[in-house]
Amino acid sequence: MVLAYEGTGFHGWQRQPGGRRTVQAVIEEAWERICGRPVAVVGAGRTDAGVHALGQVAHAVTATRLGPEELTRALNAHLPEDVVVRELTEVGEGFHARYSARRKRYRYRLHRGCVRPVFERRRSLHVSYAFDLSRMRRAAEDLVGRKDYRAFAAADPARACYRHEDGTVRTVSRAEFVEDGEMVFFDCEADGFLYKMVRTIVGTLLEIGRGRRPPGDISDILDSRDRRRAGPTAPAHGLCLEEVFY
Amino acid sequence: MVLAYEGTGFHGWQRQPGGRRTVQAVIEEAWERICGRPVAVVGAGRTDAGVHALGQVAHAVTATRLGPEELTRALNAHLPEDVVVRELTEVGEGFHARYSARRKRYRYRLHRGCVRPVFERRRSLHVSYAFDLSRMRRAAEDLVGRKDYRAFAAADPARACYRHEDGTVRTVSRAEFVEDGEMVFFDCEADGFLYKMVRTIVGTLLEIGRGRRPPGDISDILDSRDRRRAGPTAPAHGLCLEEVFY
Repeated sequence: MVLAYEGTGFHGWQRQPGGRRTVQAVIEEAWERICGRPVAVVGAGRTDAGVHALGQVAHAVTATRLGPEELTRALNAHLPEDVVVRELTEVGEGFHARYSARRKRYRYRLHRGCVRPVFERRRSLHVSYAFDLSRMRRAAEDLVGRKDYRAFAAADPARACYRHEDGTVRTVSRAEFVEDGEMVFFDCEADGFLYKMVRTIVGTLLEIGRGRRPPGDISDILDSRDRRRAGPTAPAHGLCLEEVFY
Repeated sequence: MVLAYEGTGFHGWQRQPGGRRTVQAVIEEAWERICGRPVAVVGAGRTDAGVHALGQVAHAVTATRLGPEELTRALNAHLPEDVVVRELTEVGEGFHARYSARRKRYRYRLHRGCVRPVFERRRSLHVSYAFDLSRMRRAAEDLVGRKDYRAFAAADPARACYRHEDGTVRTVSRAEFVEDGEMVFFDCEADGFLYKMVRTIVGTLLEIGRGRRPPGDISDILDSRDRRRAGPTAPAHGLCLEEVFY
């Protein structure tokens, strides 16, 4: 399944004890209503509370007589309006939404302008102060490559990323800004992301953009492998998982 | 003031007895908190419950020592997140938001595609059936001109439009469709609009688009001056007051 959801009304992707509303739980319920028995749904990544998705990918192992199109319609009829199955295809047993993923792309949406946005408020961070995008672009270049991103990761030993075979080393293939009117997008693509990595990068780049840090700071922060050297974590609601590559 | 608001959480523009949440009431409260006494706010038009605005215009008569920029900041600090003052300027006593308005532009947002949208769901109508946009474009041409639009108006004797000097005659200067990916916009500009006029036009054009009526129907409906000849009223949440011209 390729899934889109507005993270605002969810306590993140992952099913939680106590029945809090999560994307995984809501999708598993829809499957169960269609198949008549519990179905486990595995996502490519665990988006945090408030983080959105346009292209989350998840798989489920089940037996049904419905074809992909009928199944998509049935699921969407059972799903609430803030989550939708965009595509659904049958895959082989070797496919695993998380382990088969090769790269992911996130987009962080910034809104600049003196007036806060009304329609984009749930999925963009309104930045009311002036920032120098060319400084942020220069700084972002230093993020690209195969590097240790530990300094940009929040400590959370429960997260799977810490059990990754490469530890906190990842390969970032893209880290760049795109302008679109009053919106500025930060697009970041990598073979994997540490916990809160994109949001910490954005928080740090914004400090560079407003002149509180030099653009060269990124390399020093990376070298330090020390979270305290990086900037604050940007809010969840600006972030969106756009695409997962297999 | 030029105002933007998401209509979803409001019972329309106009203040209502009983304290229901309306845009006018919320804006008057913000003014009162800043000025320390009640301030009456007059809008260019009364958007219905669920209808949005990117460019509603309203005026207020008040005395304050704050300049336009300080006043904008103060108002936006007091306003809830679903309404914002985009611009504010001082005008002469001769200016009246409603009576000085020369034209208004509305946009109705349609989303086409088999999958309902998640992020645009509050401000677009998802149309899951196929429709022929070229038929709708041809039909829309017949709406342009100085005509009697009574057949496209919902009966509501309390509305000011029925006390308009021209009765139900208006001049529509633009009625056209714009495509943008999965979105289709219907832009309608006129010197005035009757009650639910754009929504009834859109409901009728969609019936033409899906082949239930011939494109030539618009002229017959206009000539009939009979609301029963037109199609259903499209839902409020697709409609947005984009701009008021003075």
